[in-house]
Amino acid sequence: MTVKQKPAEKIILGIDPGTTITGYGVIRAGKAGPELITIGCIDLSKFEDHYTKLKHIFDRTTGIIDEYHPDELAIEAPFYGKNVQSMLKLGRAQGAAIAAALSRSLPVFEYAPRKIKLSITGVGSASKEQVAAMLMKILRFSDPAVKLDATDGLAAALCHFYQSGRPYAGAGKSKSWKQFIRENPERIE
Amino acid sequence: MTVKQKPAEKIILGIDPGTTITGYGVIRAGKAGPELITIGCIDLSKFEDHYTKLKHIFDRTTGIIDEYHPDELAIEAPFYGKNVQSMLKLGRAQGAAIAAALSRSLPVFEYAPRKIKLSITGVGSASKEQVAAMLMKILRFSDPAVKLDATDGLAAALCHFYQSGRPYAGAGKSKSWKQFIRENPERIE
Repeated sequence: MTVKQKPAEKIILGIDPGTTITGYGVIRAGKAGPELITIGCIDLSKFEDHYTKLKHIFDRTTGIIDEYHPDELAIEAPFYGKNVQSMLKLGRAQGAAIAAALSRSLPVFEYAPRKIKLSITGVGSASKEQVAAMLMKILRFSDPAVKLDATDGLAAALCHFYQSGRPYAGAGKSKSWKQFIRENPERIE
Repeated sequence: MTVKQKPAEKIILGIDPGTTITGYGVIRAGKAGPELITIGCIDLSKFEDHYTKLKHIFDRTTGIIDEYHPDELAIEAPFYGKNVQSMLKLGRAQGAAIAAALSRSLPVFEYAPRKIKLSITGVGSASKEQVAAMLMKILRFSDPAVKLDATDGLAAALCHFYQSGRPYAGAGKSKSWKQFIRENPERIE
């Protein structure tokens, strides 16, 4: 069977959830490669109440989804933490962001910090600054004032772009043949 | 100032979030004391995918809120767990349930398991079976087939009823004068 199909554009939202600052970035993954759409931070430090923080993560994530209509959510998800208390807090922040995505029917993909760094810079132990510098180079933008929480969110989006373009490299979660074709036009001849 | 006001009814949703089974119970807190409205389980064991479980917790919690219109959510929230992995998982389940409540503007109150057991049975180390038996006595229902996950959710609701009826006993979170009056009609003369 011969299927010739123009590669569909895909919008990816990347999020690095945290209860002090949640960083995010949105990229367009088109024929010409990844392009930056937006990057920013949800500043939660001004809220004292834990629930207000969670509500804000949920509401702002929903708002970003409704504004940019991403096709997929990629989140940075550490698997280890200092202690059970911090992991419970982090889990709730992740849960609020993931719930916002799932309530809009977005598939969710998660990546460990080391995996993201390796994917962007080629070095799993790269610093946040190195990741930010490489993101600016790849996505052709320059912003000396950009926060490293924001670039961490953006890095998750770009990591997912690299992973989902190479389904056999570890990300894999192509749920349907249609999706596989959309994501891998070069594999269909 | 003299304020005479009929005590308003309050509906409390209690949830015990978990990624295998999430138990819940709804009570009406009226003049005649607490009454059972419903009790049940959200069975997540049939879903293999972690995100499907979280989406189901979010969707079912939203559904229960839309059906019974509770005024407040009480959740059972352990502060310690076996390890960071299980706490992250639990945090996400809690985050999904809390996000559902917050997206419907319900205030959230959380109680440690020991606090709930103490509040219902008078003994912090009571067994789940003892809590279930006491709940059936207090709320005048009998169901030998009821699951202990469901009674744990219901117990959180009843614990919150006891706590919020006595704002100086530790629950406290009366956010406004209006809410304080509604919750404590006997204090206004």
